[in-house]
Amino acid sequence: MVESVVDEWRPSVAAVTDLLGALAYGELSAFDRLAEDARTAPTLATRAALAKMAGAEIGHYRLLEEHLGQLGTPAERAMTPFVAALDAYHRSTAPHDWLESLVKVYLGDGLAADFYTEVAGWLPEPTGSLVRQVLADTGHGAFAEREVAAATERSRQVRDRLALWGRRLLGEAITQAQHVVAERDELAELFVRGFGDLSGIAVLFRKLQQRHNRRMAALGLS
Amino acid sequence: MVESVVDEWRPSVAAVTDLLGALAYGELSAFDRLAEDARTAPTLATRAALAKMAGAEIGHYRLLEEHLGQLGTPAERAMTPFVAALDAYHRSTAPHDWLESLVKVYLGDGLAADFYTEVAGWLPEPTGSLVRQVLADTGHGAFAEREVAAATERSRQVRDRLALWGRRLLGEAITQAQHVVAERDELAELFVRGFGDLSGIAVLFRKLQQRHNRRMAALGLS
Repeated sequence: MVESVVDEWRPSVAAVTDLLGALAYGELSAFDRLAEDARTAPTLATRAALAKMAGAEIGHYRLLEEHLGQLGTPAERAMTPFVAALDAYHRSTAPHDWLESLVKVYLGDGLAADFYTEVAGWLPEPTGSLVRQVLADTGHGAFAEREVAAATERSRQVRDRLALWGRRLLGEAITQAQHVVAERDELAELFVRGFGDLSGIAVLFRKLQQRHNRRMAALGLS
Repeated sequence: MVESVVDEWRPSVAAVTDLLGALAYGELSAFDRLAEDARTAPTLATRAALAKMAGAEIGHYRLLEEHLGQLGTPAERAMTPFVAALDAYHRSTAPHDWLESLVKVYLGDGLAADFYTEVAGWLPEPTGSLVRQVLADTGHGAFAEREVAAATERSRQVRDRLALWGRRLLGEAITQAQHVVAERDELAELFVRGFGDLSGIAVLFRKLQQRHNRRMAALGLS
């Protein structure tokens, strides 16, 4: 009986709008970071590669903007509640160099994808499919693994520094995510309903932590 | 007789590669400028609008890269000869504010489109069509006209400053274009053959100047 109640439950349009608004601002921010990285890329080929990834993020942003419009909210209004927290995250984790930047995008994209994949199952169609589509890797993953692996193989000092950096990024991301949820009642309710109860949220956090560690290992940072 | 010789003439693959390489680097540079403007845009809506235009430039870049690959040259190799001149142009015309930046992109895109439209007729298919396609306005035109017109209506001083700026941009662009042609024999030959002789180039320059003036008028700067 409890299961069928959970099956019938659907998040409110306000909560869906919040999830998509946060994701849209995430894409716009990702575009910014990749475009900035493109400018400081060591070669013309890497510059073009990063610019193409930035272009792919904007392709995702367009899809979210269109879908938000269909749900009745302009993208800029849906994004506004998440600007402060995401900007604070980026300010507190400004990369000092090209490698820190690659690691940050890699781990951040992975974390966002893990989180939204958990949530996408609660969303009505076509919203759920749209969320999965915009979280598809834009090609940055393999690129970052290759570049970071090459740098860490050459220097143990670089590896240790980037390993610390990777751990710090997760901490900062969770801090800002908690601020957001504390301020958005619709989202807080969504998570409690979606995960069943508060212990569900604890399970989610453990999962995100495990997958983050797996990505650190893929970069050679564990 | 002379006409049929002109009809049969086709530019060399090296010259076509040069034209596409210069255009590809132009798109990559346009992406950079629009992405930077997006970061300093006054609202979230204009930021998203500029980011989407930057994304469209990268869409064009991808098409050129693919076509260059089919012609047997990686994009980065085709672009390399044009990096110095285009970067010098951008360094010598770094905008001081948002309005100068809008005017620069508007006039620069128009100038490039005029020039390549003249040249596209000489190119074999599908290259000619591709060039016309990637020069399509990414939506920046109407956006810039609206923003600049609003600012110049409010202040005659702003209008005078931007009018000077617009004239300077054309001069700097022609200076750098002449450097490029002086260094690339294939291109110099292409222009002389394509336009018939050196007086054809003079006709082209007058046309470009006239259309530049028309765009200045569209911005309210003449």
